[in-house]
Amino acid sequence: MIHIYLDAMGGDNAPGCTVEGALEALKNDPELKITLGGPREEIERELKKHEGVPGEDRLTIDDAPEIITNHDAPVMAIRQKKNSAQVKGMLLVREGKADGFVSAGSTGATLAGGMFRLGRIDGVERPALAPLLPNGKDFFCLIDCGANVDCLPAYLPQFGVMGSAYIKAVRGVENPRVGLVNIGAEAEKGNALVKAAYHLMEKAPFHFIGNVEGRDITGDVADVVVCDGFSGNLILKFMEGVAGTLLGMIKKEIYADTRSKIGGLLAKPAFKRVKKTMDYTEVGGAPLLGVKGVVVKAHGSSNAHAIACAIRQAVLMVRKNLVDSIEKEIAKQLSEQ
Amino acid sequence: MIHIYLDAMGGDNAPGCTVEGALEALKNDPELKITLGGPREEIERELKKHEGVPGEDRLTIDDAPEIITNHDAPVMAIRQKKNSAQVKGMLLVREGKADGFVSAGSTGATLAGGMFRLGRIDGVERPALAPLLPNGKDFFCLIDCGANVDCLPAYLPQFGVMGSAYIKAVRGVENPRVGLVNIGAEAEKGNALVKAAYHLMEKAPFHFIGNVEGRDITGDVADVVVCDGFSGNLILKFMEGVAGTLLGMIKKEIYADTRSKIGGLLAKPAFKRVKKTMDYTEVGGAPLLGVKGVVVKAHGSSNAHAIACAIRQAVLMVRKNLVDSIEKEIAKQLSEQ
Repeated sequence: MIHIYLDAMGGDNAPGCTVEGALEALKNDPELKITLGGPREEIERELKKHEGVPGEDRLTIDDAPEIITNHDAPVMAIRQKKNSAQVKGMLLVREGKADGFVSAGSTGATLAGGMFRLGRIDGVERPALAPLLPNGKDFFCLIDCGANVDCLPAYLPQFGVMGSAYIKAVRGVENPRVGLVNIGAEAEKGNALVKAAYHLMEKAPFHFIGNVEGRDITGDVADVVVCDGFSGNLILKFMEGVAGTLLGMIKKEIYADTRSKIGGLLAKPAFKRVKKTMDYTEVGGAPLLGVKGVVVKAHGSSNAHAIACAIRQAVLMVRKNLVDSIEKEIAKQLSEQ
Repeated sequence: MIHIYLDAMGGDNAPGCTVEGALEALKNDPELKITLGGPREEIERELKKHEGVPGEDRLTIDDAPEIITNHDAPVMAIRQKKNSAQVKGMLLVREGKADGFVSAGSTGATLAGGMFRLGRIDGVERPALAPLLPNGKDFFCLIDCGANVDCLPAYLPQFGVMGSAYIKAVRGVENPRVGLVNIGAEAEKGNALVKAAYHLMEKAPFHFIGNVEGRDITGDVADVVVCDGFSGNLILKFMEGVAGTLLGMIKKEIYADTRSKIGGLLAKPAFKRVKKTMDYTEVGGAPLLGVKGVVVKAHGSSNAHAIACAIRQAVLMVRKNLVDSIEKEIAKQLSEQ
């Protein structure tokens, strides 16, 4: 039985989406139990709407009346709000009483909780956020995506090590291709950070394919795309922005003349399939790699299904012993240096 | 009469596209004359294909037998290849014998030529590349786009000043909205660079609207989007990449079933309009702002029409006295500090 702790109040649509998402996950996985952490009464009120749903007996509530919001200063909140789901959940994972932690709430609090309540894996310089993003054919892992906005060169090869272990475990890719985000293909290109990181990446224990330029990030050239957290967050959000703008333009132009409008209606199945391929919530949230336990940060706007997917992803990370793999790979990297 | 110096051998399709592009520009603008800089014989051979085209009499050749390619180290090439179009053209602009310089060749050589042969405007810390990119409704200026991969905070407000002057001059926007690329909306977000730059941007003499997140860059929230050259180059190329991937997926899915295929055929006019709106070559290339003259870097893969557009853009920059405006605005910024 795998035990996931879910932050019941995390996310724009909580606790409705978290309770419903937990039930969906329980229904789909008989080997799963979930603890919902949050104010007991609120969770119970929400649960009443779903009485008698299969799997409900594998769901328990952990009363965590203190709530950390996006307005709280993360590190301070983790220090002070000891009765929050973030703090209680992370401690349970640390004690081995839960196998993984999932939250759609404050990213900062999840990072701070992971860093200070769960702790870093030995040798890991900086834990990093590593969502899977679509490239039209498959998904690639973008690491770091915002946990470390200012990076030292030495962080980047470790992101590669962790991302590579992650993709191997959850996507079953044998020898993941690891690329470094840069503005040119040649080793000597880029800013001071990536120039120094490039040479460290070459020596690291993964399949380094060299630099990946902006136009190739979604071109299925790398399974793991490594960058500092500022660039990663920019890439993540810009991808959403460009896709939204482009699809908005297409929609507008399709409605602009009758012939195109009819065409658009007929082509609806195609657009639906594109939307489905682009939907990265299906593969879960962004795991925080490098901490001593499984932590998944789901998108703040997650619906119930996205929450269920994030839980499924956390379960997979537990089943594949990802934390152990990262520990081993980091030790290997450090011993080879 | 405005006189533009065009690097005849610059670009993947040169000299075919440059000669043809020059002739298109001359045909459309009777107040324009162009000097084609490059090996005389090659240019003459190309020109023979177009004998008798209107405007040809306003075209002259400047024999510049030395060619700077993408494989040359830019600064070294500018220093040594004194008979290259880049060096000869920049010097003519500096001497006031030409009004502007256009090249689709090596970006590095154009930058180095601008910096060391033309020179910086007084007070400008770093010249910057500033292409116009589509947001579906209009175009925004992204500055810097690769000229300065490592930036100090003080460079960024100057990018804002120059971008603002540029948008005012060439797009006729009265009070351009200037935003700072960041990973959050709040002033305290971001890496060390943007955190420090934010406060300088607040004091600068332009309409600062604060941070712009990745998802809003193409959301028509800012006319001028300021960032370091590494982020800017990433944004520029990633935009191309995402748009290409997404359109590729749509195409693939439209061909995947008969109903969608018919729909796609009918909706062709809509897709054509989208493609046209997205085509940023229509608005020209990337100007190098901050140097003592008009310099436009056209896309390496430019066809003749894109070259003609880059020339038209350079002419507009000359007609609007952009270099003077930037000089005045930078002086103003420095005096207010």
